[in-house]
Amino acid sequence: MFRTPQETEVAFYRALERADLAAMMEVWADDDNIACVHPMGPRLEGREEVSESWRRIFGNGARMRFRLSDIQELREGDVVVHVLHENITVSAGRSESTVLATNIYRLVGDSWRMVLHHASPAPRPQDEEEIEDEDEDEDSPKVLH
Amino acid sequence: MFRTPQETEVAFYRALERADLAAMMEVWADDDNIACVHPMGPRLEGREEVSESWRRIFGNGARMRFRLSDIQELREGDVVVHVLHENITVSAGRSESTVLATNIYRLVGDSWRMVLHHASPAPRPQDEEEIEDEDEDEDSPKVLH
Repeated sequence: MFRTPQETEVAFYRALERADLAAMMEVWADDDNIACVHPMGPRLEGREEVSESWRRIFGNGARMRFRLSDIQELREGDVVVHVLHENITVSAGRSESTVLATNIYRLVGDSWRMVLHHASPAPRPQDEEEIEDEDEDEDSPKVLH
Repeated sequence: MFRTPQETEVAFYRALERADLAAMMEVWADDDNIACVHPMGPRLEGREEVSESWRRIFGNGARMRFRLSDIQELREGDVVVHVLHENITVSAGRSESTVLATNIYRLVGDSWRMVLHHASPAPRPQDEEEIEDEDEDEDSPKVLH
């Protein structure tokens, strides 16, 4: 049981770091109205598709460490949304990459469960500066919309 | 006033197509706990950052047409989440590109307003097949997590 959205979030990233599929699927709401988007991946719907994607990711052998930062919270009744940066180190010695994630938690019975995870690549700091500086570059995918 | 999340969504994409900044900012909740992520862009927080980003996008002269598809809805009390595909045609004659978006609407007073828009590139159909076929490719960013 996850008594707060924070507990659910901790359990989610712990399951991810440990590549623990059973713990991961405990985090998600136990119904099929859930959605998961991995970086540059398709939208996955329902427990079967979501579970299968984590099984595949965990099966590829790469181990990841997560450092979360810049957590913004939107809270409304029984729904809590976190928009945050995942600073990820893959296996040993590689440099950190950053992913932007929207995580949505919902109170189901007496436990907060994940209902959506939408992750996408975050720009590197120099890319952000480029966005500031390049008003005129209408072909840049960074400013498509 | 937007009486349903659907009305808000229609107004959001109409403002985007018309490059109408005033109409766009009418759609967003009138407080600073809002977040917007454009494809491959940084997380923007608050009305000033969000408004400035749309001003820049609208100012670059490119006009976009949106065809929405595959809308998945998660509803809980005064919060509605849509995860959908934006099929976008830029100006005349270019081919369609697809963006995955999570849109969150919240009932504020008697009007549904947008509080989050997280958009990221969707894989092309052939990319999705590659994900299915390439279990072993642990360096692929598509399966990072």
